[in-house]
Amino acid sequence: MRNTTLCYLERDGCYLMLHRIKKENDLNRDKYIGVGGKFKEDESPDECLMREVAEETGLTLLSYRCCGVVTFVSDIYETEQMYLYHSDDFTGTLTDCSEGVPEWISMEDFESLPKWEGDLIFLELMRRRVPFFTLKLRYEGDTLVYAALNGRQLSDLGRSIWNRN
Amino acid sequence: MRNTTLCYLERDGCYLMLHRIKKENDLNRDKYIGVGGKFKEDESPDECLMREVAEETGLTLLSYRCCGVVTFVSDIYETEQMYLYHSDDFTGTLTDCSEGVPEWISMEDFESLPKWEGDLIFLELMRRRVPFFTLKLRYEGDTLVYAALNGRQLSDLGRSIWNRN
Repeated sequence: MRNTTLCYLERDGCYLMLHRIKKENDLNRDKYIGVGGKFKEDESPDECLMREVAEETGLTLLSYRCCGVVTFVSDIYETEQMYLYHSDDFTGTLTDCSEGVPEWISMEDFESLPKWEGDLIFLELMRRRVPFFTLKLRYEGDTLVYAALNGRQLSDLGRSIWNRN
Repeated sequence: MRNTTLCYLERDGCYLMLHRIKKENDLNRDKYIGVGGKFKEDESPDECLMREVAEETGLTLLSYRCCGVVTFVSDIYETEQMYLYHSDDFTGTLTDCSEGVPEWISMEDFESLPKWEGDLIFLELMRRRVPFFTLKLRYEGDTLVYAALNGRQLSDLGRSIWNRN
């Protein structure tokens, strides 16, 4: 089981995402995701967040919000507990990143880009500023097969949360 | 790094605690703490919570709140990320527990009982229903030497939070 953070920095209604095309053996290969990574030994979630944002973007968060924890279970990858953060209050100059190409993406554009389907659920919960939540997502390969919010299964895999059509 | 849950069940202004006197090699030996334990593989925080409460008390939570995550760092023990829960909405009959002797304890009584000092900080934050928080606590042996709330160090080790004298 590994612990990670993922942060969405927001500016002018867009979110900073990394297009993960730089590393060959990347479980997020070709997908768009926020900024973050694995805990180092002895780190708290906040410390991991601050370090990963600085390393991957060169930016410093001035304030942030922990929106929830997402548990990823997969038939391929190790189980992951991911602390989801949001910040629209940061300083510095965006730098290059070895993990992916940074781009500012609107939610409307994000829906048609390569991604993990479950990311739409927690991004929408984050955008709505739903109080701290836990979300469990189970994948078979790239396919989302189970979702539970605050311990209760979402029978539609969360589509009613993010699908506005 | 290990992930755990800890839950305080509340009834009539008292909290259910386990007096940890049953197991010889217990890092909580002789102390009073809430109910909880380690994540099993693939569990979400909520699933670990529900299982541990059922196993240790025979009770079933009907609703609960995740109050925060506490990162424990120690010169003796492995780093721990502990999800703190509160519930005053549960059903069932309290059973015996192999981990400790269950007792309903008021906060006033708790202050004079054997405990980890930092527990006073997160119990008070829980009681005040402070929005979801992260708390980092560093111990040297049984002595609390560092505390940080939401990423900011508490210069008084959190005493101004819990000390009402």
